[in-house]
Amino acid sequence: QVRQMLSSLRPVEIARLIASSPPPSRTVLWDLIDKDVSGEVLEELPYDIQSHFVRNMGTEELVELTEGLETDDVVDILQQLPEQVIQEVMEAMTDQDRARVEEVIAYDEATAGGLTNTDTITVRPRFTLDVVLRYLRRHPELPPSTDSLIVVNRKDDYLGLLPLSTLLTTDPSVTVREVMVTDTNAIPAAMADKDVAKLFEQHDWISAPVVNEQGKLLGRITIDDVVDVIREEADHSLMSMAGLDEDEDTFATAARTIPRRAIWLGINLITAILASSVISLFDETIDKVVALAVLMPIVASMGGVAGSQTLTVVIRGMALGQIGASNLGWLLSREVRVGIVNGILWALVMGAIAALWFQDIKIAYIIGAAMVINQITAALAGALLPVGLKALKVDPALAGGVTLTTVTDVVGFFAFLGLATYFYG
Amino acid sequence: QVRQMLSSLRPVEIARLIASSPPPSRTVLWDLIDKDVSGEVLEELPYDIQSHFVRNMGTEELVELTEGLETDDVVDILQQLPEQVIQEVMEAMTDQDRARVEEVIAYDEATAGGLTNTDTITVRPRFTLDVVLRYLRRHPELPPSTDSLIVVNRKDDYLGLLPLSTLLTTDPSVTVREVMVTDTNAIPAAMADKDVAKLFEQHDWISAPVVNEQGKLLGRITIDDVVDVIREEADHSLMSMAGLDEDEDTFATAARTIPRRAIWLGINLITAILASSVISLFDETIDKVVALAVLMPIVASMGGVAGSQTLTVVIRGMALGQIGASNLGWLLSREVRVGIVNGILWALVMGAIAALWFQDIKIAYIIGAAMVINQITAALAGALLPVGLKALKVDPALAGGVTLTTVTDVVGFFAFLGLATYFYG
Ligand SMILES: [Mg+2]
Ligand SMILES: [Mg+2]
Ligand SMILES: [Mg+2]
Ligand SMILES: [Mg+2]
Ligand SMILES: [Mg+2]
Ligand SMILES: [Mg+2]
Ligand SMILES: [Mg+2]
Ligand SMILES: [Mg+2]
Ligand SMILES: [Mg+2]
Ligand SMILES: [Mg+2]
Ligand SMILES: [Mg+2]
Ligand SMILES: [Mg+2]
Ligand SMILES: [Mg+2]
Repeated sequence: QVRQMLSSLRPVEIARLIASSPPPSRTVLWDLIDKDVSGEVLEELPYDIQSHFVRNMGTEELVELTEGLETDDVVDILQQLPEQVIQEVMEAMTDQDRARVEEVIAYDEATAGGLTNTDTITVRPRFTLDVVLRYLRRHPELPPSTDSLIVVNRKDDYLGLLPLSTLLTTDPSVTVREVMVTDTNAIPAAMADKDVAKLFEQHDWISAPVVNEQGKLLGRITIDDVVDVIREEADHSLMSMAGLDEDEDTFATAARTIPRRAIWLGINLITAILASSVISLFDETIDKVVALAVLMPIVASMGGVAGSQTLTVVIRGMALGQIGASNLGWLLSREVRVGIVNGILWALVMGAIAALWFQDIKIAYIIGAAMVINQITAALAGALLPVGLKALKVDPALAGGVTLTTVTDVVGFFAFLGLATYFYG
Repeated sequence: QVRQMLSSLRPVEIARLIASSPPPSRTVLWDLIDKDVSGEVLEELPYDIQSHFVRNMGTEELVELTEGLETDDVVDILQQLPEQVIQEVMEAMTDQDRARVEEVIAYDEATAGGLTNTDTITVRPRFTLDVVLRYLRRHPELPPSTDSLIVVNRKDDYLGLLPLSTLLTTDPSVTVREVMVTDTNAIPAAMADKDVAKLFEQHDWISAPVVNEQGKLLGRITIDDVVDVIREEADHSLMSMAGLDEDEDTFATAARTIPRRAIWLGINLITAILASSVISLFDETIDKVVALAVLMPIVASMGGVAGSQTLTVVIRGMALGQIGASNLGWLLSREVRVGIVNGILWALVMGAIAALWFQDIKIAYIIGAAMVINQITAALAGALLPVGLKALKVDPALAGGVTLTTVTDVVGFFAFLGLATYFYG
């Protein structure tokens, strides 16, 4: 009955079901899938799960599976295999399939080439629209997401686009050359997929032609694959800030999860020890005034929270391409002003609480001053760390959080305990 | 020369430039924009900035501005204005513009209706494709992102779709009725925009028809607007986890930023004080063994890091619709196993360090045990808090982080200092 249920679902729904299942059920589900749709299911699966299934397949199964798929999806699957297996699968393919795969397999997964689908309809500039219309009628259907035909010369050089809108609303006696759109450049196959996504978002494209270094048409990129890039890119900041990968499988096994998480915990242990060693500089003062031990985490924690707000705004702004040398100064000054005002506000509140709690006005001044110092530090660190890390070619979303809390913990403990040592010492 | 530079940019590029500029420069740029493109620039601006400009405009200016825009964009702009002004602007519109806006303005911004564009081409089922082709030829062009014509009856009831692909590849003598696609249902105008985005992603749609409660065609949604929804939705988790709104303007003024951030800091101050009050329960023990004050932040911090990893995975999984009653148990057990193994691993490392640092084997056992307890707590809290918060209709991305660190701080301090009190007391 599971098999029956599966056969009533679309490939994308089956893929979602598999992705939402713990690993043991996944293999069971996979084996129950109708062989005709297994290729389509595979291409809709998240990267991690796809790899898992693909690596356990034989050459024959792989060839069969990839037969009905679009070129970009075939390449996605092949690129997860060892060189040896790729060769075997490609040799077993039909000549036509091999030819289309060969054209794009050299391009990295994260480039325009890696998103390129070879399934395009091309026309020549000297055709009349009437000829084009008759030519299209000989096709059983147009490739999915076709909004334009691609105009090329005999040597397959990209010349321009013939939008279906133009084809359908123009007098059929004119030639393609007269009405083709030439103001959009084709996408170079080496362009980063992020930049491709930006172009699609800005121009509201449905599909766009892709060319190789010689300007020859390789194929086209369609919006549905760009949507996947956008989703992944947006996930990247969220996951990286917790030391996770955007490809992380929600239901990865414990065995896979443990080593990945362990590294991040190890890095954080080092930074936590660093902060503790700052505390140990002042152990005599703490021994004198135990209230300091009670209050010191508040200073560090408030700094961490303020800093991560600034950090998140800056990382998001950087991902949107909004932050550059021209406006960083303004942003920094805004953050510092916010830090000063909110620092003073909550320092007053916390100072009053501390004074009442420990019946000691001195400790109120000390925690207030330390909080203001740490809020300003947090603003500076939150704004400058991601920019600095990026300049060092370190991913700010990944390293920003740890470095930030290290700064706010160290400065927070140092300011608070240092002031206390001065006033109580 | 700035004006000249601006006139060479596309509206979306001008919008990006404005969004990347600090507020003072924004007004200057806005005033320099060619009036013909200001509507298009406005619709590309982020929500916060759009509101700012729109609220400072007169009725006349608003009418002029919205004239060339698509219905969904006009409605987006109008919905930011007070009821009174909306009435005035609509009265000043042409009859045709008013009619199309009236159809969709009642729908909330975050629904299918709020994304609906009335600019559609409809055909009747009894037409032959030849008639349709001649009918299209009378249009100067097709509306942007048209991949299908919409088939309706005389009463404007939605019947099906005629994909351009079918129109172009089928014998023109057949009727629309014979080839129209009826297996896709139209989107109800009240559907949440998130769900619309999921449908588009799953079906790889370019556009989809929208109907009202009576099944009458209202218009269509196009992928370019869905891409904006996807971007916003993905941004939501990232920004919420720092207590920020996804609409947050990167270059908002300090005056706007201060109160927004202050609330989040205030909430965190309360939770930090809660954690501190746990510490103060054990001030006598700390007074006896000052090393405890030095080491206690490590226990809390490692718990916070582990917990936020679990929390992020669960929040992302929930946003992707992967987590439900059927798999939560498996996920929880995986997280607990990961927590136990990594807890023991880093407890051993930290125990060894503590023993060497303070030349005391007792403190090594205490910090090790507290770390294991807190890692398991973190796993449980990270997995269960977002699910519990969602059940209480509280946004887990917003409230998850604070509640989580409250739990890991409180349990971390309690376990560590409690064990220490027992063994040193
Ligand atoms: Mg690829
Ligand atoms: Mg767009
Ligand atoms: Mg647009
Ligand atoms: Mg594709
Ligand atoms: Mg794909
Ligand atoms: Mg990746
Ligand atoms: Mg902390
Ligand atoms: Mg809207
Ligand atoms: Mg898709
Ligand atoms: Mg697809
Ligand atoms: Mg639109
Ligand atoms: Mg829009
Ligand atoms: Mg919003």
